[in-house]
Amino acid sequence: MTIEQDLALALRLADAAGEAIRPYFRAANLDTEKKGDASPVTVADRAAEEAMREILRAEAPEDGITGEEFGTEKGTSRREWVLDPIDGTVSFVVGRPIFGTLIALLVDGWPVLGVIDQPILGERWVGASGRVTTFNGKPIETRRCRELSDAVLATTGPHYFDNHQGEHFMALAAKTDHKRMVMGGDCYNYGLLASGHIDLVCEAGLKLYDWAALVPIVEGAGGMMCDWNGDPLHAASEGHVLALGDPARMEDVVEAMVCNH
Amino acid sequence: MTIEQDLALALRLADAAGEAIRPYFRAANLDTEKKGDASPVTVADRAAEEAMREILRAEAPEDGITGEEFGTEKGTSRREWVLDPIDGTVSFVVGRPIFGTLIALLVDGWPVLGVIDQPILGERWVGASGRVTTFNGKPIETRRCRELSDAVLATTGPHYFDNHQGEHFMALAAKTDHKRMVMGGDCYNYGLLASGHIDLVCEAGLKLYDWAALVPIVEGAGGMMCDWNGDPLHAASEGHVLALGDPARMEDVVEAMVCNH
Repeated sequence: MTIEQDLALALRLADAAGEAIRPYFRAANLDTEKKGDASPVTVADRAAEEAMREILRAEAPEDGITGEEFGTEKGTSRREWVLDPIDGTVSFVVGRPIFGTLIALLVDGWPVLGVIDQPILGERWVGASGRVTTFNGKPIETRRCRELSDAVLATTGPHYFDNHQGEHFMALAAKTDHKRMVMGGDCYNYGLLASGHIDLVCEAGLKLYDWAALVPIVEGAGGMMCDWNGDPLHAASEGHVLALGDPARMEDVVEAMVCNH
Repeated sequence: MTIEQDLALALRLADAAGEAIRPYFRAANLDTEKKGDASPVTVADRAAEEAMREILRAEAPEDGITGEEFGTEKGTSRREWVLDPIDGTVSFVVGRPIFGTLIALLVDGWPVLGVIDQPILGERWVGASGRVTTFNGKPIETRRCRELSDAVLATTGPHYFDNHQGEHFMALAAKTDHKRMVMGGDCYNYGLLASGHIDLVCEAGLKLYDWAALVPIVEGAGGMMCDWNGDPLHAASEGHVLALGDPARMEDVVEAMVCNH
């Protein structure tokens, strides 16, 4: 398949997920259940992933699929689709339209295509290797950040860090413009970083399906994604994820996160 | 003026504020400046408050006006309009459509009418004493919460608490469903609480213009607003604000916040 065909397929996946999700947003008596880790799982989550898997089985039967809800189906090609039907489940459950559907295509384990889709607002970020990232079809770019002290830092919530991780995060936060620190937001923060509104995102505990789609989006807009040491992300990165709008600040960020433990 | 006339006036204020704000949302090179507390102030903030003040001077010249940006103009009636053109400035500045314009009418110092308007999404919560709160014109109600351990708690960010306040907040958070804790959101969280999607909001440092509009909205939907002791809010409450979807949980919440200091 060409990259155009892959992109077209990815957008059809996003359309299908959005269609599955929208009826459940702010619906009363949402049929939630609790997983082992007590995160809310909604019927929308499962319906959206199933809708995307059906399309992939029909249109890309040789490709593998990994999704948050239904695990891995091995493929016979070097390609794997990685799906998170609702990234930002808490935002979804409380009715905030800043969650997203994440779709990534990996080739030999590396994300070459990514989509963040916000189905309530009709907002969509699309990135692919060697291409300029788009937001609703228009090219976007990250912004420069001359000084770490001017940087707007975002994270989904301090309660997602363990104590040790939290110390590193706080060390970083203290060196940024912490009065403008952004809390909450999940994948939406990375979209806003790609669009040039946020300078840094720092998180821990992200799974492959949480970050794979973000890499082509952030990097295709001129930004950088790496782990807390500044190294490229990989499946075994422990989910220590940094996104930078301005790659020139990478060493400052990694240095700021060092604390004496 | 009748309550209908007051409501109609309040909605015209919200329309005017939204019109002033929309052109600046996600605009490049936003003309921000830093106040003493380093919070971002945008041209949108000032334009929106000025637009509302102009309407009030023309249509309710006897009423006082207090706004976040331009202070207090004393009136000659018992009535005072309290305005926060952009509550959630950080969300606004980073392009998240979960900030809001807050409009309250106080009579003898007590809020009898409140509006939360989200001008990007076209979402509007309206509350008035003795009336059922509406969201986009439809009546809404808060949800019951049988056990504090099931409660979804929201706050704009832990970095808005000082250490002592943070300890009280953490004591409360530990007794709620903290895996579903919501971060970020400002006034939008209170709207979602009124709509039955969030159970508790706990914040510190709120000014009169941050909370006055929320009282008629939350209470007209069946909820309760109070300070951290469970007492009614007043201008000297130190900004310790609690909102409860289910007033039956008030004693549990106040008790949970006690810590031994």
